[in-house]
Amino acid sequence: MVPHLTTALTGPLLELEKQFLDRATEIEKWFRVQWLDHMPPFYGSTDLRNSGFKLAPVDLNLFPGGFNNLDDSFMPLCVQAAQAAIERICADASKLLLIPENHTRNQFYLQNVAKLVSILKLTGLDVRIGSLLPDITAPTTLELANGATLTLEPLLRSGSRLGVEGFDPCAVLLNNDLSAGIPDVLRGLDEQWLIPPLHAGWHVRRKSRHAAAYDRVVNAFAEEIGIDPWRINPEFRVCGEVNFHERTGEECLAHQVDSLLTRIRAKYKEYDITDEPFVVVKADAGTYGMGVMTVKDASEVVGLNRRQRNKMAVVKEGLQVQEVIIQEGVHTFETVDGAVAEPVIYMMDHYVVGGFYRVHTERARDENLNAPGMHFKPLAFDTCCSIPDCSKEPDAAPNRFYAYGVVARLALLAASVEIEETEPAEEAVA
Amino acid sequence: MVPHLTTALTGPLLELEKQFLDRATEIEKWFRVQWLDHMPPFYGSTDLRNSGFKLAPVDLNLFPGGFNNLDDSFMPLCVQAAQAAIERICADASKLLLIPENHTRNQFYLQNVAKLVSILKLTGLDVRIGSLLPDITAPTTLELANGATLTLEPLLRSGSRLGVEGFDPCAVLLNNDLSAGIPDVLRGLDEQWLIPPLHAGWHVRRKSRHAAAYDRVVNAFAEEIGIDPWRINPEFRVCGEVNFHERTGEECLAHQVDSLLTRIRAKYKEYDITDEPFVVVKADAGTYGMGVMTVKDASEVVGLNRRQRNKMAVVKEGLQVQEVIIQEGVHTFETVDGAVAEPVIYMMDHYVVGGFYRVHTERARDENLNAPGMHFKPLAFDTCCSIPDCSKEPDAAPNRFYAYGVVARLALLAASVEIEETEPAEEAVA
Repeated sequence: MVPHLTTALTGPLLELEKQFLDRATEIEKWFRVQWLDHMPPFYGSTDLRNSGFKLAPVDLNLFPGGFNNLDDSFMPLCVQAAQAAIERICADASKLLLIPENHTRNQFYLQNVAKLVSILKLTGLDVRIGSLLPDITAPTTLELANGATLTLEPLLRSGSRLGVEGFDPCAVLLNNDLSAGIPDVLRGLDEQWLIPPLHAGWHVRRKSRHAAAYDRVVNAFAEEIGIDPWRINPEFRVCGEVNFHERTGEECLAHQVDSLLTRIRAKYKEYDITDEPFVVVKADAGTYGMGVMTVKDASEVVGLNRRQRNKMAVVKEGLQVQEVIIQEGVHTFETVDGAVAEPVIYMMDHYVVGGFYRVHTERARDENLNAPGMHFKPLAFDTCCSIPDCSKEPDAAPNRFYAYGVVARLALLAASVEIEETEPAEEAVA
Repeated sequence: MVPHLTTALTGPLLELEKQFLDRATEIEKWFRVQWLDHMPPFYGSTDLRNSGFKLAPVDLNLFPGGFNNLDDSFMPLCVQAAQAAIERICADASKLLLIPENHTRNQFYLQNVAKLVSILKLTGLDVRIGSLLPDITAPTTLELANGATLTLEPLLRSGSRLGVEGFDPCAVLLNNDLSAGIPDVLRGLDEQWLIPPLHAGWHVRRKSRHAAAYDRVVNAFAEEIGIDPWRINPEFRVCGEVNFHERTGEECLAHQVDSLLTRIRAKYKEYDITDEPFVVVKADAGTYGMGVMTVKDASEVVGLNRRQRNKMAVVKEGLQVQEVIIQEGVHTFETVDGAVAEPVIYMMDHYVVGGFYRVHTERARDENLNAPGMHFKPLAFDTCCSIPDCSKEPDAAPNRFYAYGVVARLALLAASVEIEETEPAEEAVA
């Protein structure tokens, strides 16, 4: 079940990995104390890139949509972590309403929802699925390709409570990233737990705010463990006023791209890295790998043609791009069956519960893999991220993926900080 | 990795198992609410017997000594559960002192300690091992057969704190069941967490008190789920004044054996069971499978010969047997590679973290398997106890062992109740 993995783990990362393994006890202690101060998100996933000299998260998703890609052997970990999450947030809850994305034909996404429902049921929750889709006016059962079924039901709002017919839940779990903004039906649910909070949706979230929180988290961690934070942190710049259609903001973009590339070149020189630096220009809000561009020279963002501008201008749910983040590109040195691959790590509460590889047979190692044509390879349980192979602990299960679990949790911790800092004043919420 | 398992799962248990699977959500919810009221032990293990018509715990150990028998694939679950346990008891702890049994030659036990140490380290604790052995006067490193090493250190008592040289822990974890009573060095540790509490040791514990708590737990559970509690509860009787050497108390013993056998015959008749009923006579305090006798007729406990009396009179650490529990015998219908087997389920905090089979090639299915000559077969991860195979959840991993996890947790819950009820008044502790 372990994918054939050829990782170019040359000098520096082995050193980094070794440092993580040597200091696993301190690292875990550090995390334990952090989670006393910061409430972990209910769930999250992160895309990592491993260049051999740098291991960094490039995205943190608070509405993970790939539980179906987790190997079944991860299920007990998922259930155990979900139990911890439920106990932390609403231990007395017995009914939970799940609100998924508005997809009714995306088999992969629907299988994700089915997997999530089965995890939640096994924690002891009655789970029903409420749909935001206006055309779901009666319970609608979807037959999935893997034999599972899902019943979507119309939402019923009653005063400040949300449910479905005959079902008044204690908690509402969003698996919908709210890219289109907050539907009225979700506003003012003062009597129910809403997980994650509304302001964790992409109508509010900004990648740059997450990156800024990650900066601080990583700086504190790196100081504790004694590493250069750059080794696990992709640097970034921001342009706040870009309009690709109207061709405004190009100058800012070119300037920031150049500034970041200059910085990366200096760090590459410091570490004797001969790879060609690149940056990734992305919409600061939004997900699904849309509105993403790989750039190796500032001149590439000046005078974009119509196709390029159209591609960058609109992301999911037709959201217009105005703010742009320029993120240091991290080559991925990992391949699965000869194709370029990046690990995706899944977490519930503050626990790593599994992961898989996103694989793209037609992309290069300096390109975005979250694009049509990608596929997924489960990481089998042997290689899960919560136990390192410490040479001091010969009885611990061999595991090369501990470093992935560490970096993924740093990104999750940054998301906690980000959610705390963006929490609206109480009046605004109500 | 899955042992070849031939389980005689005839009618009634399949029905019981099906009831558990059908009501998994309610069962998990019931447990969740119970754990809000009752503090789970830090860890525990339970021996189950599965007769096909009855699935019952016959022992609950609060100082589990077989972590080494768990398949490595269970490690992530162990680490995750240990993190939850530490966060619950002493989230701010960073140093933990482990006090093991006084074995320095039992390789299996020492490998158990090494495995436990590695689990605890991976939760972010500095762990040192303090020995109660008087001949450990300096740090003593033991090389284990599996390549691991363990360093035992002499205990250092300083005022009301316990540690080892240069190590002042926040918490002290006992993996020593205190059969010999409470060593003075462990008394009055008012400033440190002592896990489990001293009164969970076998100098205080009585199997009958656990069985009485299990009665109540199971009655509440059975009512909730709608089953006959007898199906998961071995009945018991007690004799308080038995002296095998002086041949006193035989009458009480014979009377209680007869009374229990009569009761079992009635239940067997009710369920059309044709097996021959038996009871197990055990020391009410103590463990390690010592002082155990299988009895099919009351006459067998009258006029015991010297060998039998010697066998029953003394258990671990030379403790004299005075109180005796007579427990309903549960045949084990399970075999591994042709030998009689019983599942042993491991738990940390309130989570099932793994299990294995105790196998004895020379014992019958109505005999105690915890005896010289036994060996262990790991349950592989595929068959772990936290996820049921619900026909309603086609995407859940197949799992026939959910029922084991449920019954094991009922025994653990009974231990929580037992520990609460035996907690000494504050003055007595100090």
